[in-house]
Amino acid sequence: MRPEILVSEVGPRDGLQSIDRIMPTEQKKAWIAAEAAAGVCEIEVGSFVPPKLLPQMADTAEIVEFACTIPGLAVAVLVPNLRGAEAAIKSGAHKITLPLSVSESHSLANLRRTHDQVIEDARAIAALIDDQPEGKRPHFEGSLSTVFGCTLEGAIPLPQILSLAERLMQAGCDEVGLSDTTGYADPLAVRAMIRAVRGAVGVKALTGIHLHNTRGLGLANVLAALDEGLDTIDSSLGGIGGCPFAPGASGNIVTEDLVFMLQAMGLQTGIDLQKLLEVRKILAEGLPGEPLYGFTPDAGLPLGFVPEDQEKIKEAAK
Amino acid sequence: MRPEILVSEVGPRDGLQSIDRIMPTEQKKAWIAAEAAAGVCEIEVGSFVPPKLLPQMADTAEIVEFACTIPGLAVAVLVPNLRGAEAAIKSGAHKITLPLSVSESHSLANLRRTHDQVIEDARAIAALIDDQPEGKRPHFEGSLSTVFGCTLEGAIPLPQILSLAERLMQAGCDEVGLSDTTGYADPLAVRAMIRAVRGAVGVKALTGIHLHNTRGLGLANVLAALDEGLDTIDSSLGGIGGCPFAPGASGNIVTEDLVFMLQAMGLQTGIDLQKLLEVRKILAEGLPGEPLYGFTPDAGLPLGFVPEDQEKIKEAAK
Repeated sequence: MRPEILVSEVGPRDGLQSIDRIMPTEQKKAWIAAEAAAGVCEIEVGSFVPPKLLPQMADTAEIVEFACTIPGLAVAVLVPNLRGAEAAIKSGAHKITLPLSVSESHSLANLRRTHDQVIEDARAIAALIDDQPEGKRPHFEGSLSTVFGCTLEGAIPLPQILSLAERLMQAGCDEVGLSDTTGYADPLAVRAMIRAVRGAVGVKALTGIHLHNTRGLGLANVLAALDEGLDTIDSSLGGIGGCPFAPGASGNIVTEDLVFMLQAMGLQTGIDLQKLLEVRKILAEGLPGEPLYGFTPDAGLPLGFVPEDQEKIKEAAK
Repeated sequence: MRPEILVSEVGPRDGLQSIDRIMPTEQKKAWIAAEAAAGVCEIEVGSFVPPKLLPQMADTAEIVEFACTIPGLAVAVLVPNLRGAEAAIKSGAHKITLPLSVSESHSLANLRRTHDQVIEDARAIAALIDDQPEGKRPHFEGSLSTVFGCTLEGAIPLPQILSLAERLMQAGCDEVGLSDTTGYADPLAVRAMIRAVRGAVGVKALTGIHLHNTRGLGLANVLAALDEGLDTIDSSLGGIGGCPFAPGASGNIVTEDLVFMLQAMGLQTGIDLQKLLEVRKILAEGLPGEPLYGFTPDAGLPLGFVPEDQEKIKEAAK
């Protein structure tokens, strides 16, 4: 059953691909299994990219096959192109995300792809998915990255963003996502961008957002997204990944703090926060010496904190 | 001129009193002068408590007298009782804050005062202020601490909080403030508490909030407070103070990140963020080895970020 707010864990992909050390396959499996057991029901487990480029992701097919055996877990992967999507479909992944950087300079620098080429890939991937037998068709998301600004181009004109969102949907994506790749977002920008993109592609075609905590605004930006009605929030256990700049400066939103905020607000996540905090141990063992972020793990939960009570309190306050 | 949002710096009081090391008076003065020069127009510069208890605050009278020479700066101090208020008035402080912990256990543990005794102090302080000649009467705030929960008692019943807010106003406070002493607040609780307290004492009697970042929700809670129309937000340069639990876990909201968020949202603060970031150097020199927090200082500002442009963009988006 889908929770009120879906916390989509991206650590095994976005986190591990940013860290030079390669986590052994068995530890990745233990992490994914433990986090699923804590109630996290969507995990982006890897990326189908050439192992030469990202050796950390070389075992993605095996990881997907393992993760698909966990009951109730939606197994998501990232693909940079059609070839990656072919591998993703073969592996049995439930959700495929194709990033499209709305900054063309960034798209060329990162994926060596123009906008037209990425849209062409989206069309080919959608066709490939359509060719699959029913029940075997993964959900297909086009993720608009650098949508809140780019380190090369600065702010990207809104008409360009809206046009790319429309083109992704026309190419056959099931939905688009927003990604604050550079950590430039602020709460007002989040609200305005969600309204604008939903205005272009429809409310149902935008439900999720990937935010960073680069300038400390991650959870404030989440709050803005929740206010606008999004219900799928990406985050990373221990805040790993997402291009951290310096010690103490996590890149990705920290799953532990996000879940605490959602539960404190009386929002149902399906996650057992105490069990989730335990999963950090696996991460610490699998990545010795790597800094883990998050405030809630250090501070602990408030005295008398019971998520179900919070849900009742907030229900009564309505 | 008062900015749209008043960032009230509490580092020289809340920050320094939490750190064992005593910052030399001249460095405190340099810090306060530099932060005022960066455009921060209210600073809580110290606390009138017995030097035996808090030797870090022993020079508060001298600091207040110095700060009062800075044009346009509102000089705030904390006082635990009538005796402290007498010293504060003598020193020429513009704003006096008397904390009242809504948890009586916490009040007894921290100030060895019952609720009745604190209310009696508030009455005596208000009378003393009334006796001052016009133009010499400081603004008097009663600060409701542990208002989002207490580490000893857990959640405090709302009727008790509202009754104490009303009693502080009846005793002669100009306004009440809310303080998340324990870092238990979440955005929904912030919204609900502001509405409830304003319902009890009136909108004008609650304009400011003191939030902590103990569980990483500090700026999300600020956003909730802004949504409710509060316009005075406490924070601490480098996030010092506010009972940090562990490295990376700052207690107070970080002024630098707060100002970045406000400016990114197009809210006018009167602060020059680049100059503010420079003030960290004084803090680092004055507190060698002490950890400083904040994400924006490490990440820097987004490419092409100009606060005035943000104000125009957000104005146009309305």
